[in-house]
Amino acid sequence: MVSDKMKGLLAGSSVIRAMFEDGKRLAKEYGSENVYDFSLGNPFSYPPEKLKTVIKSLVDDLNPTFLHGYMNNSGYEAVREKIASSLNKRFGTDFSFMNIIMTVGAAGGLNVAFKTLLNPGDEVITFSPYFSEYRHYADNFGGKLVALKPNTGGGFRPDAEELKKAITTNTKAVIINSPNNPTGVVYSEEDIRNIVNVLREKSAEIGHAIFLISDEPYRELVYGGVTVPYLTKYYENTMVCYSYSKSLSLPGERIGYLVIPTEIEDFSDMVSATNTATRILGFVNAPSLMQLAIAECLDECADISVYEENRNKLMKMFDEIGFSYIKPEGAFYLFMKTPEDDKAFAEQAKKERILLVPGSAFGCPGYARIAYCVDTKVIERSYEGFRRLAERYRD
Amino acid sequence: MVSDKMKGLLAGSSVIRAMFEDGKRLAKEYGSENVYDFSLGNPFSYPPEKLKTVIKSLVDDLNPTFLHGYMNNSGYEAVREKIASSLNKRFGTDFSFMNIIMTVGAAGGLNVAFKTLLNPGDEVITFSPYFSEYRHYADNFGGKLVALKPNTGGGFRPDAEELKKAITTNTKAVIINSPNNPTGVVYSEEDIRNIVNVLREKSAEIGHAIFLISDEPYRELVYGGVTVPYLTKYYENTMVCYSYSKSLSLPGERIGYLVIPTEIEDFSDMVSATNTATRILGFVNAPSLMQLAIAECLDECADISVYEENRNKLMKMFDEIGFSYIKPEGAFYLFMKTPEDDKAFAEQAKKERILLVPGSAFGCPGYARIAYCVDTKVIERSYEGFRRLAERYRD
Repeated sequence: MVSDKMKGLLAGSSVIRAMFEDGKRLAKEYGSENVYDFSLGNPFSYPPEKLKTVIKSLVDDLNPTFLHGYMNNSGYEAVREKIASSLNKRFGTDFSFMNIIMTVGAAGGLNVAFKTLLNPGDEVITFSPYFSEYRHYADNFGGKLVALKPNTGGGFRPDAEELKKAITTNTKAVIINSPNNPTGVVYSEEDIRNIVNVLREKSAEIGHAIFLISDEPYRELVYGGVTVPYLTKYYENTMVCYSYSKSLSLPGERIGYLVIPTEIEDFSDMVSATNTATRILGFVNAPSLMQLAIAECLDECADISVYEENRNKLMKMFDEIGFSYIKPEGAFYLFMKTPEDDKAFAEQAKKERILLVPGSAFGCPGYARIAYCVDTKVIERSYEGFRRLAERYRD
Repeated sequence: MVSDKMKGLLAGSSVIRAMFEDGKRLAKEYGSENVYDFSLGNPFSYPPEKLKTVIKSLVDDLNPTFLHGYMNNSGYEAVREKIASSLNKRFGTDFSFMNIIMTVGAAGGLNVAFKTLLNPGDEVITFSPYFSEYRHYADNFGGKLVALKPNTGGGFRPDAEELKKAITTNTKAVIINSPNNPTGVVYSEEDIRNIVNVLREKSAEIGHAIFLISDEPYRELVYGGVTVPYLTKYYENTMVCYSYSKSLSLPGERIGYLVIPTEIEDFSDMVSATNTATRILGFVNAPSLMQLAIAECLDECADISVYEENRNKLMKMFDEIGFSYIKPEGAFYLFMKTPEDDKAFAEQAKKERILLVPGSAFGCPGYARIAYCVDTKVIERSYEGFRRLAERYRD
């Protein structure tokens, strides 16, 4: 009696469930300290200490019907104004509260954006490898995700020429994710300019705007002084989708926002539509206490040095062992080349009690994702397992 | 560039926006204490005092990566188990955590339920007057809301004969809301039995199950010793959709749950599908801290005596003034008969700085909804305005 779409999804999701069950089984058999689980993008770092004080003060000081009450579906105006100011200070933008719509995390924000933009049959283009949920989010509204083939020869940078070839009159949006899940690649200013040039040229050619959706929950997680360009400064028809899941280590709280720049086509309708979409999709509004809490922590960040340490340890380990990988500049993922079919490799890894996600899950076979948002000890303890795993592939 | 569906909605939503703007204008002109706003279902009562202590203890005592972290998309197992036990104790049910799926409020839960059940073209039947968002929630998944005509002659009780006539092979679900928004009517055990008998008979006739979705955010808000039957005990193919918005006065926090009884058809698929739907609709999970907080407040309730006091005051006032209405047994709404067209009446009321919602917004012209979840003083101060309003209609 489950709907046809959901039936299809249940069949497909059994791979992930199987991995989860495997993990539980291994932990039971060998002890959880002897299982090296790199499969989940669950932030390991603590939220900033200030968050505790902020939450307790809010609870003590505010009228609870305000603190836990309904507000405008787009969020508290004061919170949105603070976020706008913070962005303006950091990126030289010119936002007011009108440009900020509070969302139930980035996943909520993406669904609101797609509901706002997509007619059935509309296409959303993305670069592989990509976060597989994009396909579901687009499909929720009858949209179709078009995944460009992975730029394996070009370090997984976005290939603007491939993008150009893929755009049709059905193209309504392009979604990018930088710092990237699963590769850790950060798109440079040049990458962005190349994409934007294509979008301008093709928008004119097909006769309607192509929107650029920037999914950037990993914005603050960058290493080695890399900068992440702020996209509304390059292209007017941009929606930025942000989440505090990683920067403040609050993934379970579901708190983020959408940015709709004033220059976007049909700004007033866009803002009304995102407000209405937030309501009718059943989010209603982003959780109230958390809106007010993050507003007091905009200059804070979870301790991301642990991720950088993990990244460095993992790279050093793989260099020694002889696995090849893309050097991550951001996020907390390392994308490695698998010496055989990625699913078969994941099975071999499991024999060493190492859990990782085959690249096929991101539209990129022949690779695997290692989520290094774990206790550094897990990485250290996994050394022998990875070494033995590599040995399985030596002639 | 907004999608066609959203464009249609923006045009339609201007009525509510106009009312909101009117309210702001009146407050500016006459002072907010001289505007009697009965238009919003925003709980007025404070959450239980215990909630403060609970939130502060959670923040102090729990590992923040657990407190604010990802968990199973269906919610923390321990929270779900506590809710199951609490329901079992109160209603004599036999639930475990497996039967409970934590949701982003009731609106989130209804969207998850509809995503789980509906194929495009499927029909969901409801009794008028009804919460107008149901139409959008069904439409999100290509479903169609079929609203039965209001039982004005029968005190707005559900008319099972009308239901029977409306069921077709496309009927996938019936959604009911008791205590009811906007009428305040509570469905009796007999009402439920009548509905269930029809559902059993017609399910057999059309060859597939018809699901009963019980939207019950007002369950705890009942007056005069009325009881609200627990529907899974009457019908196996029931999904209960609950929210803490009203019972704990936490509407902004977006926290509730779905109940899927073990006896439901395709239980295992249903549970997997609701879990997956929670994820892919972008909710991901119900807010983590609030899950843990409400789990410690299951035996608590916001002070609902203020609503009962307001209800009594309002009824007494209307009896004196000569307005007729349905006596509310639950929720915090009073549904009054309007002496002329309900929209024209709402305009007249506005001249007395009284804001109420025309019944047309709930599929029931000729009536208006008074949301009495306000400071009792607002009701007291509105007396003269209501009296003058009534006078406008005396010959």
